[in-house]
Amino acid sequence: MDGKQFVKEIADINENFTQWYTDVVTKTELVDYGPVKGTMVIRPYGYAIWENIQKDMDARFKKAGSKNAYFPLLIPMSYFTKEAEHVEGFAPEVAVVTHAGGAKLEEPLAIRPTSETIIGTMYSKWIQSYRDLPVIMNQWCNVMRWEKTTRPFLRTSEFLWQEGHTVHASEEEAMEETMRMLDVYRSFAEETLAIPVFTGRKTEKEKFAGAVATFGMEAMMLDGKSLQAGTSHYLGQNFSKAFDIKYLDKDSKLKYGYTTSWGTSTRLIGAVIMAHGDQRGLVLPPKVAPIQAIIVPVAAHKGGVNEKAAEIETALINAGVRAETDRRDMSPGWKFNEWEMKGVPVRIEIGPRDIENNQAMVFRRDTLEKTTVRLDNLVSEINKLLADIQKNMLETAKKRRDERVVRANNLEEILKGVDGGNFVKAGWCGCRECEDKVKEYAQATSRVMVDEEGVPEKCAICGKPAKHLVIFARAY
Amino acid sequence: MDGKQFVKEIADINENFTQWYTDVVTKTELVDYGPVKGTMVIRPYGYAIWENIQKDMDARFKKAGSKNAYFPLLIPMSYFTKEAEHVEGFAPEVAVVTHAGGAKLEEPLAIRPTSETIIGTMYSKWIQSYRDLPVIMNQWCNVMRWEKTTRPFLRTSEFLWQEGHTVHASEEEAMEETMRMLDVYRSFAEETLAIPVFTGRKTEKEKFAGAVATFGMEAMMLDGKSLQAGTSHYLGQNFSKAFDIKYLDKDSKLKYGYTTSWGTSTRLIGAVIMAHGDQRGLVLPPKVAPIQAIIVPVAAHKGGVNEKAAEIETALINAGVRAETDRRDMSPGWKFNEWEMKGVPVRIEIGPRDIENNQAMVFRRDTLEKTTVRLDNLVSEINKLLADIQKNMLETAKKRRDERVVRANNLEEILKGVDGGNFVKAGWCGCRECEDKVKEYAQATSRVMVDEEGVPEKCAICGKPAKHLVIFARAY
Repeated sequence: MDGKQFVKEIADINENFTQWYTDVVTKTELVDYGPVKGTMVIRPYGYAIWENIQKDMDARFKKAGSKNAYFPLLIPMSYFTKEAEHVEGFAPEVAVVTHAGGAKLEEPLAIRPTSETIIGTMYSKWIQSYRDLPVIMNQWCNVMRWEKTTRPFLRTSEFLWQEGHTVHASEEEAMEETMRMLDVYRSFAEETLAIPVFTGRKTEKEKFAGAVATFGMEAMMLDGKSLQAGTSHYLGQNFSKAFDIKYLDKDSKLKYGYTTSWGTSTRLIGAVIMAHGDQRGLVLPPKVAPIQAIIVPVAAHKGGVNEKAAEIETALINAGVRAETDRRDMSPGWKFNEWEMKGVPVRIEIGPRDIENNQAMVFRRDTLEKTTVRLDNLVSEINKLLADIQKNMLETAKKRRDERVVRANNLEEILKGVDGGNFVKAGWCGCRECEDKVKEYAQATSRVMVDEEGVPEKCAICGKPAKHLVIFARAY
Repeated sequence: MDGKQFVKEIADINENFTQWYTDVVTKTELVDYGPVKGTMVIRPYGYAIWENIQKDMDARFKKAGSKNAYFPLLIPMSYFTKEAEHVEGFAPEVAVVTHAGGAKLEEPLAIRPTSETIIGTMYSKWIQSYRDLPVIMNQWCNVMRWEKTTRPFLRTSEFLWQEGHTVHASEEEAMEETMRMLDVYRSFAEETLAIPVFTGRKTEKEKFAGAVATFGMEAMMLDGKSLQAGTSHYLGQNFSKAFDIKYLDKDSKLKYGYTTSWGTSTRLIGAVIMAHGDQRGLVLPPKVAPIQAIIVPVAAHKGGVNEKAAEIETALINAGVRAETDRRDMSPGWKFNEWEMKGVPVRIEIGPRDIENNQAMVFRRDTLEKTTVRLDNLVSEINKLLADIQKNMLETAKKRRDERVVRANNLEEILKGVDGGNFVKAGWCGCRECEDKVKEYAQATSRVMVDEEGVPEKCAICGKPAKHLVIFARAY
């Protein structure tokens, strides 16, 4: 039983992964298309995943010393021109407000594509002395980037995200912050989303417009492509000079601060879908699953079944499990398929014979295994099972990924590697031309540099001495 | 000691309430002005209040059966024209995107001023059968209304809010939902913000553009003016007909749904400030205060003081209290003023002599009383105190308000009433002309109708038979 017989409406995951993704996100009601091209509507089942992501990540930010704030959506266009690389990177995809309140505006306003410029402007006003540093703030908000090709969660003109913006007295502290937040992202991805990631510095070509250095985390999707799941930027003094973020130091000298920014977005939902899904649909890690345990009464019309289901539900909720009972007037089989498609980690089936035997059937979504559990132990067993599923999903994803990381010594091998759905590690001389050649020849891009694993002697593209070990992959 | 001697920078609350408000919101770092006219930056101390409001209110929504979702920011301008009253009400204050991605758009897009139109469009797609009803969704987001006169939190071009949108099979159910959510708002205002409110139906003049009926809650500010703190709209079939929200009923007939919408915003922060503040600054209800207990070490250089402060902080945090210790290199007196201005409900002072005597000085912000508390009982006493402050703040606000509600039998008395900083209850015939007269003569508007208290015989304005008992007030 491979699930196909039930979930006919989902395209074959191996033959057409793109269509599989579209089918899954729409048919599980995670998302729908908005009326304006490239926009998405995040439906309750998808938004509940985002709420779980936010709650978990927000606690990590606060532990790392960050406070939330909210900055305006609209940014005067002139702000973008203050940092040369930044405007070049973002101006082409900005949405512009030209009229408001029935009149033409004196200056057109951009809907924020990212907020370095407006937050920098406010920081310049707030920061006076070394005593005011460090400043570590984050905002959860919507941003807009007018993209040509869009896909729900992965690339949409509007998306939800968090953006952290910090100011420090020294280069060293700012770099520490950059790496600290990259590590927060990495541990969040692994511990909460059950997604293993490669972290490392991005090449000049792939870095954030205006950054000195961008560090990213890259996750392998089921098709072997990479998804950039979060970035942390060391901005040096680029923005503090552009926006005049200065402080009076202990030595009575006026100095520019060093800034960082870091962000993750609703893309993470796309990552969860494409890192864990299977032919039946979604497979959600318990920590972000809107429903962790679905209870399906079997032969619900028989005496005691509905009561027992309600009893189990209450006991689970009281034990901190997000549990629900499906009481709809549909067959158990139909419900099983529905909740498997929706990726609920655990299903509990309870019927008259189960009650008689003081047990329930328990199905786990990740391995598709079914076992019987004694009702007396049910709550503790479900909690153990959820922890085990969370752990197993990370291990499975890590094993799958590690099997698909290969080495390449020349362009041919890079092409062969990515064609086979792999991440390809190769030496790189550091020049833009070689990067462009990989793009042209293998339709792959450099994802991150992992020099700490040991840099090979030669650049796999030009044969000159290598300066970096790069992961090349096709990417979302 | 009236506090004035310390907090010189805050304008006199009785002489210039407007300036007092501006001073308080900026000097306590709740908010700052954004670069675009009419926008605000919500700073961490202000945003933390919003987070507490969100968390509390969101739990109430979920308990009432609502699920969160997210709909796009940009709405095609043509959508607004589908509901005649709605477009008339909102078109004049809409901000319009005309260009994006470097090109002119085919159709201009509005930044949502409210989302009935786009949500209605999606509901029309999602709702097919009576089985799909009711639909109860809410979104937390930003909205934009281009206002001429703005003030932080009270009226800004962009603000944060929640908007609930529901669809029901019958008029009766939709009206029930409208009233249920009004009651959720009322209990939230009283229990969490410690603000008593009048709830009731709005007049035709004051209702939401496109609604059949709007119900609002009105809170009295310290200056006797009213602040509309939340509204719940019964939309009848106005929007379901405009956006084609139809369902196949059990009788196999296609019927239009009945819709409602309800919203509250960052205005609530303004309400908290102006309902509870005093000459020293903010007075925050414990339930939404970012810091509930501030610990100030006295003679911190002396042995054991910092350690004892840390111990108290940990014990309070473990008991669920939002506690912090102020370790800055400033005098205790300076800190006392600072935290009083910032409205922290409880201050704990701990010095060498206190430790010797196994006690701490505890100051409560609402009554300005100071007592000594034994260290052994500190945690339980602080928790009791916080509950008492929450309760006392509501009682105080209610007493203050009830003393300032007067009756009027003619226009003269209405003017006198609002001039004296009161809410004025008066009979009203129901005609627009009389409402306009009140506006012209007394610069007051009808806030809500409270007919259940008994409708007087005559309209206070024209003398004809009264149909309603109206609360008139000047309003924010």
